[in-house]
Amino acid sequence: MDMTPFEQSESSVRGYCRAYPTVFASASNARQTAEDGTSYIDFFAGAGVLNFGHNDPRMKAAMIAFLESDGVAHSLDTYTTTKRDFIEKFRDVVLRPRDMDYRMQFTGPTGTNAVEAALKLARLTTGRREVVAFSGGFHGMTLGALAATANDAFRQWAGVPLTDVVRLPFETSPGGDTAVADYGAALRNASSGLTPPAAFLVEVVQAEGGVNLATAAWLHQVQDLAREVGALFIIDDIQAACGRTGSYFSFDGMGLDPDIITLAKGLGGFGTPIAMNLNKPFIDDSWSPGAHTGTFRGQGLSFVAGTVALDYFTDDVLMSEVATKGAVIRDRLEAIAAAHPEQDWEVRGRGMMQALDTGDGAFAKRVQQAAFETGLLIGPCGTGGQVIKLIPPLTIPDEDLAEGLDILDKAITTAAGVA
Amino acid sequence: MDMTPFEQSESSVRGYCRAYPTVFASASNARQTAEDGTSYIDFFAGAGVLNFGHNDPRMKAAMIAFLESDGVAHSLDTYTTTKRDFIEKFRDVVLRPRDMDYRMQFTGPTGTNAVEAALKLARLTTGRREVVAFSGGFHGMTLGALAATANDAFRQWAGVPLTDVVRLPFETSPGGDTAVADYGAALRNASSGLTPPAAFLVEVVQAEGGVNLATAAWLHQVQDLAREVGALFIIDDIQAACGRTGSYFSFDGMGLDPDIITLAKGLGGFGTPIAMNLNKPFIDDSWSPGAHTGTFRGQGLSFVAGTVALDYFTDDVLMSEVATKGAVIRDRLEAIAAAHPEQDWEVRGRGMMQALDTGDGAFAKRVQQAAFETGLLIGPCGTGGQVIKLIPPLTIPDEDLAEGLDILDKAITTAAGVA
Amino acid sequence: MDMTPFEQSESSVRGYCRAYPTVFASASNARQTAEDGTSYIDFFAGAGVLNFGHNDPRMKAAMIAFLESDGVAHSLDTYTTTKRDFIEKFRDVVLRPRDMDYRMQFTGPTGTNAVEAALKLARLTTGRREVVAFSGGFHGMTLGALAATANDAFRQWAGVPLTDVVRLPFETSPGGDTAVADYGAALRNASSGLTPPAAFLVEVVQAEGGVNLATAAWLHQVQDLAREVGALFIIDDIQAACGRTGSYFSFDGMGLDPDIITLAKGLGGFGTPIAMNLNKPFIDDSWSPGAHTGTFRGQGLSFVAGTVALDYFTDDVLMSEVATKGAVIRDRLEAIAAAHPEQDWEVRGRGMMQALDTGDGAFAKRVQQAAFETGLLIGPCGTGGQVIKLIPPLTIPDEDLAEGLDILDKAITTAAGVA
Amino acid sequence: MDMTPFEQSESSVRGYCRAYPTVFASASNARQTAEDGTSYIDFFAGAGVLNFGHNDPRMKAAMIAFLESDGVAHSLDTYTTTKRDFIEKFRDVVLRPRDMDYRMQFTGPTGTNAVEAALKLARLTTGRREVVAFSGGFHGMTLGALAATANDAFRQWAGVPLTDVVRLPFETSPGGDTAVADYGAALRNASSGLTPPAAFLVEVVQAEGGVNLATAAWLHQVQDLAREVGALFIIDDIQAACGRTGSYFSFDGMGLDPDIITLAKGLGGFGTPIAMNLNKPFIDDSWSPGAHTGTFRGQGLSFVAGTVALDYFTDDVLMSEVATKGAVIRDRLEAIAAAHPEQDWEVRGRGMMQALDTGDGAFAKRVQQAAFETGLLIGPCGTGGQVIKLIPPLTIPDEDLAEGLDILDKAITTAAGVA
Repeated sequence: MDMTPFEQSESSVRGYCRAYPTVFASASNARQTAEDGTSYIDFFAGAGVLNFGHNDPRMKAAMIAFLESDGVAHSLDTYTTTKRDFIEKFRDVVLRPRDMDYRMQFTGPTGTNAVEAALKLARLTTGRREVVAFSGGFHGMTLGALAATANDAFRQWAGVPLTDVVRLPFETSPGGDTAVADYGAALRNASSGLTPPAAFLVEVVQAEGGVNLATAAWLHQVQDLAREVGALFIIDDIQAACGRTGSYFSFDGMGLDPDIITLAKGLGGFGTPIAMNLNKPFIDDSWSPGAHTGTFRGQGLSFVAGTVALDYFTDDVLMSEVATKGAVIRDRLEAIAAAHPEQDWEVRGRGMMQALDTGDGAFAKRVQQAAFETGLLIGPCGTGGQVIKLIPPLTIPDEDLAEGLDILDKAITTAAGVA
Repeated sequence: MDMTPFEQSESSVRGYCRAYPTVFASASNARQTAEDGTSYIDFFAGAGVLNFGHNDPRMKAAMIAFLESDGVAHSLDTYTTTKRDFIEKFRDVVLRPRDMDYRMQFTGPTGTNAVEAALKLARLTTGRREVVAFSGGFHGMTLGALAATANDAFRQWAGVPLTDVVRLPFETSPGGDTAVADYGAALRNASSGLTPPAAFLVEVVQAEGGVNLATAAWLHQVQDLAREVGALFIIDDIQAACGRTGSYFSFDGMGLDPDIITLAKGLGGFGTPIAMNLNKPFIDDSWSPGAHTGTFRGQGLSFVAGTVALDYFTDDVLMSEVATKGAVIRDRLEAIAAAHPEQDWEVRGRGMMQALDTGDGAFAKRVQQAAFETGLLIGPCGTGGQVIKLIPPLTIPDEDLAEGLDILDKAITTAAGVA
Repeated sequence: MDMTPFEQSESSVRGYCRAYPTVFASASNARQTAEDGTSYIDFFAGAGVLNFGHNDPRMKAAMIAFLESDGVAHSLDTYTTTKRDFIEKFRDVVLRPRDMDYRMQFTGPTGTNAVEAALKLARLTTGRREVVAFSGGFHGMTLGALAATANDAFRQWAGVPLTDVVRLPFETSPGGDTAVADYGAALRNASSGLTPPAAFLVEVVQAEGGVNLATAAWLHQVQDLAREVGALFIIDDIQAACGRTGSYFSFDGMGLDPDIITLAKGLGGFGTPIAMNLNKPFIDDSWSPGAHTGTFRGQGLSFVAGTVALDYFTDDVLMSEVATKGAVIRDRLEAIAAAHPEQDWEVRGRGMMQALDTGDGAFAKRVQQAAFETGLLIGPCGTGGQVIKLIPPLTIPDEDLAEGLDILDKAITTAAGVA
Repeated sequence: MDMTPFEQSESSVRGYCRAYPTVFASASNARQTAEDGTSYIDFFAGAGVLNFGHNDPRMKAAMIAFLESDGVAHSLDTYTTTKRDFIEKFRDVVLRPRDMDYRMQFTGPTGTNAVEAALKLARLTTGRREVVAFSGGFHGMTLGALAATANDAFRQWAGVPLTDVVRLPFETSPGGDTAVADYGAALRNASSGLTPPAAFLVEVVQAEGGVNLATAAWLHQVQDLAREVGALFIIDDIQAACGRTGSYFSFDGMGLDPDIITLAKGLGGFGTPIAMNLNKPFIDDSWSPGAHTGTFRGQGLSFVAGTVALDYFTDDVLMSEVATKGAVIRDRLEAIAAAHPEQDWEVRGRGMMQALDTGDGAFAKRVQQAAFETGLLIGPCGTGGQVIKLIPPLTIPDEDLAEGLDILDKAITTAAGVA
């Protein structure tokens, strides 16, 4: 396998390839195959994009048909038949059954762009400048979204002050139990030095931040404070939606009523780029036409694959599987943690986003390496990369899941022995 | 044609669909066909993305083959065979013949993300905060890039102060002839209140800004000042590269030596999202792995189509056509301007980016409308949308080009009559 | 009394004159006399400046002698004999007995300038940008100090974003018991979105903020966290020092070790403008000569009067009186509060800064008006001006104190009756 | 002379004392006397404060009388008889004869505070954020004013980004001839990336910046552009007013109509601290009571001395002397420049602010040292301190002026010889 072209000609900024030093040639559902024929089980799924696995056959067929029929692949925000299909399907499958009334805004096809658009809209609607974001939050890498992202591993490269964000501890961070109440009290105090924000931007499950879970009670507290002070309540569901946690949205069943929901990653179904915000109509009205544009909004191939992906949510089959497989993963992680009682490991997660917090980034890196060498792809997350996050395709076959967990178990033993 | 789903469920921010009130169903080279069968000649090409037309047959075939063979569609920044093919082809076709030594950085697949990455790298490399950008410049919609974008039509929605950018007039703006020299003199004066910037960010041809052309002499002046004060010289070639102006880069033949070049739009060939920065190696070394990430970097389909697109630059055929067709467009525009001597219309452009500056945004909008109604898609640009920009696919058949120009001519007459 | 010239020619921004609609002609110790002969007892003391009363005879004599001998009234930061006298006396009377080692920096003669200089020095020393300030804090009106000031009544007029300050609740504010610990935990967490600040800026007694008192334990917590994270610990003692709370500094006896102490107000003794920071030598070394300048540093008359003022601290006489009179004030306020059990009034203070928190700004304003009309000057403070703060000259004669308290008592009854 | 207390206990930031290593004990008109009896002629006048010399006998007498009569020395912004005297005198002597209608705002008694107040008022009035300031401008050291100050020698210590200021070259700087026109053109262009500022802040004579003189024509251009774009036109006359340039204001006779005029330095007459803004009434109306406060506004002693100082402007005597003495200084400087034809020295100035631009800061520093050693106090200014600025008291006796110029002449020869 020739890696020289990458080493010579690709930027030093490249990252994941350093953890997976091979060249991938093909992929199918939860397996990737390298050029040398080695097969890897994929527990990383493109950082949470490939909820339906690599090269889902139905999506593939639809995309080929679309290409063969000269579908409109690139359309900016003009109207196309494929976009209409997507909009109608999303409305029928996702919104209507939940009695949700939102407008769909297709932004530049990256999560960071969706977040930038949401913050812009919140600031426009309220005429305020600051946005509340939380410790452990990850919202993207462009300056507006990066200001809301918490991890210094990403923030430190900005080169300019990251401003206009107020930072509160997430529910599971130190001080997280009282912070929202205290902040509310401060906002009610004209001598606090604080003025009301434009929005609260929160993840229900912080994926990149270390698989940290907010409770419904805490999220309601955030939502209630937002309402009280005239701020928007924005849920960033970019990594946790599209079925990952066992239902379409990560907040399904919590009784929440966000003003804006940001979506991307799994939305395109096939790994095809797309990002979409759901804006409440009365808020969406603040937009003027063209106020937030972007060249690659509305990708035909993403609409085609994304429309097929929505079929997974017309019945309970996949979500039942997520519940079952999620439990399998969790049980195994708890068994692993129990097998290492001398460590203070914590298992946490929801649906098929499960994680082992090892409290030790160097250890987690060794696990990642040992796993790779024995045929499993995983990606650490959280502060210092100390959390081993398992986010296989929701469609992973049971035997691949079992084999992957076996590999992981051994990799952890190997890595623990090395220490 | 049912437009109700868009009107009910798509965000009010949607824009181009208001100028083209129809639903497109298919597209081929320079023609788009609406659901009702109406055919439109495309002089807009997805805002400069579709240099090789809609549904280029060779790209389409390659993409279908890639899909059928279970190629790795989504790979983050891991190594894949398709990415390697692209890197090698780009190196062989574009960089080596020009004796250019750059590393390729695949950023999130939007131009704005490429610009954000370039500014980050410039700030990291220099340890400085401010970046010089120019009047009329367009660099994207996320906060870091938006700060560099000049047009208030985009800036006014930011909701926060757009900072860390020093603004100079572009060569063709009032004061543009002396501004760079004056700014240099100020930087040499410790009482000027100015300190050296991290970078100068410039477009050779401002596309969105109104098809404004910088001369080689002025660009050298900018580059020389950047060198003198230890700043980076960044060319944003997102809309003007990939053959649009008659050669691969818009600055080919000018003897310039930019530190970073941003690319996107036409790079993916098929309208498939991709963005790539070319960084000089010694500058690229400032990156740490993972310092700028993004979910949709390295799209398999974009690499596949983009690799095919590079075939257009292995010989002179297409670039010769661009020269010929560009002259056809220009001659026609000059004839149109000459036919309206009472107007102070200006024709300008390079290669197949040609424009008629009407000095009147309302008029240009009427032209756009009249053109649409008679089967031609065009997009105004510049301040107030007063510039009619023609950027058809480089591959447009001669007869479509001629027909499109005829429609335009009549639309201008129609619009002029209405006034 | 002719007030027309003020009404016609003085700026609308004038404030205190609206609460005291008269023209003062002379003043002596704790009494001011209006042009019409009315005498007022002064419980406001120039907003905490006139600790030693109006026209202290010894200071007056020294100033006249200085003028008659052609002393150097204006000297910038050149050396003068009067400045040397002041420096030596301050060293001998204040610093040495406390075993404190500080350098004296004379800034522009306003408290806000002292704070600006302290923040500059903290940022220079640490290379960091953000400063922690607290709810209820008052630090001045120029942009750097105003950013640290909490009350929106002052902040709202800035016209620009007030940046580079992190806001925590003061000990007595909601959340104040846990905020410093939580903030410390966040600073230890690389995913918190926070990085260490340059300094913590705190008042021991928030005067303008509503006479809020921090405990030694809480201040030590702040100081300890500052030490831990490499930040400076700055005490703003502008209003509370110079004997006001019963000892020279408000933090005497608390075992604290601030890196910078800001002083102004009472330091000049006579109401003569001066401001001085005490910088620890190793921190002061970060200054380059002339890095923070100002025209009116080092005022001769302020040095002369200020040197005399220091005589009050060479024995315990005045500080004993402060203890006694402070108790008198406090007892009376508690009696007043007890006489209005239906109200939720709180008495708090230290030394001769005592206050009645009425929880009702409109009521406090009525009290101020009724007091003025019956010969007493007081000034409300705190959020919405709800706190009646009593800060008479420390030298007030017992009979004036008693009379003033009587007037206050009646004014409160009057104001309560009006409601 | 014991300088140890300063060296041990005063901050390292002290500056002027390093150029004048002695201890001053007394001063009278244009002479300062050191503790060891050495007499110095003062061509620096407290950085432009002591227009009427040290210890002016009439002011001294008035101040002593004020002290003896228990005048109100400290009054915040309450009404006092001394303040009323000052307001009426200023109105009668300065404003009415010029038919100027302004309100007087007494800010904290430093020039920087006056500038902060002016910028606040401009931002409040216009609802805009940015202020235009010029290369070479000096406006103070607190963050808001420092952002407007140009010299990097002062700016580099801020520790935070200095924001919300747009910088243009002053008339005499490179590009200064076209900058205002170009900026105006940019403001009229919606694609310039610029939006209208809140104000233009300009000095008629840049004192600290190197004695740079703007023409009436250029100032009118600035004023006209301000009017056109709805911005305020603010003249910072802190150092150049109060008779320094031959009339009360530096812009007298130019036909200008500033919206705000900032004054300080010479206004107090005796070196006593005071600062005052003159606000046009319709602009002043934007202030709410207490929107900009400060402890040491309205100093009794400053009002007393400042009122006496205004007597100098009730007839032409002093201003005639300024014309005469200014010419003497200028002639001598031109003779000196002519005597060193090999140098490219420039003489410039107006009234009794005259300067020799030596183009060499190290040389000017040697001149300053040689002058000090032979009994003359001068202060360099401009970039790198290359400009020898002569600003003796306007009241300097002819013989002192002549002797001082002789000393300067020799010091220049000495310094030139050393090189």
